[in-house]
Amino acid sequence: MTTSQSATINRRVVLARRPQGEPVAEDFRLETDAVPTPGEGQVLLRTVYLSLDPYMRGRMSDAASYADPVALGAVMVGGTVSRVVASHHPKYQVGDWVLSYAGWQDYSLSDGTGLLPLGAAPEHPSYALGVLGMPGYTGYQGLLDIGQPQPGETVVVGAATGAVGSVVAQVARLKGCRVVGVAGGADKCRYAVEVLGMDACVDHRGPDLAGALAEVTPKGIDVYFENVGGKTFDAVLPRLNTRARIPVCGLISAYNATSLPDGPDRLPLLTRTILTKRLRVQGFIIMQDYPDGFGAFRREMTGWLEQGQVKYREDVVEGLQAAPQGLIGLLRGENAGKRIVRVGTDEGSA
Amino acid sequence: MTTSQSATINRRVVLARRPQGEPVAEDFRLETDAVPTPGEGQVLLRTVYLSLDPYMRGRMSDAASYADPVALGAVMVGGTVSRVVASHHPKYQVGDWVLSYAGWQDYSLSDGTGLLPLGAAPEHPSYALGVLGMPGYTGYQGLLDIGQPQPGETVVVGAATGAVGSVVAQVARLKGCRVVGVAGGADKCRYAVEVLGMDACVDHRGPDLAGALAEVTPKGIDVYFENVGGKTFDAVLPRLNTRARIPVCGLISAYNATSLPDGPDRLPLLTRTILTKRLRVQGFIIMQDYPDGFGAFRREMTGWLEQGQVKYREDVVEGLQAAPQGLIGLLRGENAGKRIVRVGTDEGSA
Repeated sequence: MTTSQSATINRRVVLARRPQGEPVAEDFRLETDAVPTPGEGQVLLRTVYLSLDPYMRGRMSDAASYADPVALGAVMVGGTVSRVVASHHPKYQVGDWVLSYAGWQDYSLSDGTGLLPLGAAPEHPSYALGVLGMPGYTGYQGLLDIGQPQPGETVVVGAATGAVGSVVAQVARLKGCRVVGVAGGADKCRYAVEVLGMDACVDHRGPDLAGALAEVTPKGIDVYFENVGGKTFDAVLPRLNTRARIPVCGLISAYNATSLPDGPDRLPLLTRTILTKRLRVQGFIIMQDYPDGFGAFRREMTGWLEQGQVKYREDVVEGLQAAPQGLIGLLRGENAGKRIVRVGTDEGSA
Repeated sequence: MTTSQSATINRRVVLARRPQGEPVAEDFRLETDAVPTPGEGQVLLRTVYLSLDPYMRGRMSDAASYADPVALGAVMVGGTVSRVVASHHPKYQVGDWVLSYAGWQDYSLSDGTGLLPLGAAPEHPSYALGVLGMPGYTGYQGLLDIGQPQPGETVVVGAATGAVGSVVAQVARLKGCRVVGVAGGADKCRYAVEVLGMDACVDHRGPDLAGALAEVTPKGIDVYFENVGGKTFDAVLPRLNTRARIPVCGLISAYNATSLPDGPDRLPLLTRTILTKRLRVQGFIIMQDYPDGFGAFRREMTGWLEQGQVKYREDVVEGLQAAPQGLIGLLRGENAGKRIVRVGTDEGSA
């Protein structure tokens, strides 16, 4: 099997079977096909970068969720940054960069629906998969609209050095909040404080997460941006202040779970805490709940990046064939920053 | 021990000990004292009606909650409708009616703080403890502000014939929603449909609450007004539609609980449902979260009552000495409508 792009063959990674618990290599299958030919009004896109994101685990299952599962044998879904190889569409020229949702494959056709033009020579085309794309918009909008952070409040975010968490933390800092991250390992925690500017970061692999979190949140927690769940949520719950807000955009710690944990049943504890502390807990899916704010977000975030007020780090996996292992590792927290796959070269039409 | 009011003796019910589980008679103690003498700027109030409400169970415990517990030996707290017996306050005349928070006793002093004047001859003075007071305002404001009911949506409310639930249901009906109540027993369910105008009411004592609820919510549930918790919440959870709203103002089914139920631990199930269905779950305490809307609420609700668009029913317990058993029964759902205690006569100054 080839490990680089060809001008005539379309490699694609399909879902071979539904994972039980943590995905394994055998749940994916690499197939090949001819590069398709664009019809009238269509463009042919070549994938340069593929985004790997925790939500993909959910699409591999057939449990009810907010989006349909990937069918067995179908191409894995995913956001991509691509170049136009051939165009029968008046709006696109050969060589143009676009943000698309072509999935785990080299080539795809589009009639333009859902494409975001990135111009002829974007400075950082892959940023459209992270800090300037859905993950960044998720962190920014969920924090500001549901979290409503006020200066001096304490904001806690899990997966704090990841694509979403790092944006949450830095936007909260720019809003004048005390920012505490939770991340896996000393390296990530150091990066969170030294580069991303968090006031503190707690290692969830340490022996006493609850105690460590309590120590760095002396005034309690006003906003908890929930993207991990599990033991991080458990440590946060007793620290929440009255009228705290919890935007919920993900629960990566539970995505591989095959059954509920043992008891006691703490569901009544959560609803009781929501009542007695008058919490607002709200789930959201960024483009479905906030379809109109993406342009404004991109403008503000581009400015912050240019001024150095927001830092961004990518974790690049080389080659489409490495994508399955890249996702498996992402779900284990092995990534350092936003994980993407380099599927093909930046240059040329193929 | 006397069972009626005296002009010289103040009877009061104090908290004798903290209940374990369901309160019992021995948790309360009836004491007597001299009627106090008002000082400069004070009024002496005689209690005519005392409100009994589920939140009182919480105040009997010393577990952390949104309000301080009642101290051992202190008078039980509670909303009251009282008449002015003596006044050294320029704003109040002898004979005036006021809404106060004097607790479970015959007489109290006030400097006017927290009193709501009800005039010299209100038509239904006790309504200020229910449909025109905190319970009514809780149902009205929580439904409208957090619930955001839209015409054609399905609204479900537990304790549907109680003080809060009956207001939620009727306001939702006035907003053009399909309204489904959950209540305990066939009599309450009949009242909910025939008098309060609900589209359906499910008896939570029946053998298959989840199945019965599913049958009468064919289009799912858009707003669940949470004031009971427990098995009603369990039956509602799988029926919630995407972007459903859950105002949480009470959890009466859990107030007597001394420990969490057996597992599995469904806390992750709830957070997962919040995410995948993008729910908004929000607790509130009416006067703390909505201190400014009470006047507007009273005007609108008074109009609805006068036009017969909102029905209201009281369940009157006779005499202060019966208040403990009245609260115990309320927590068991034995009340038919808003439960109040008639502490003294309407007429006269004592």
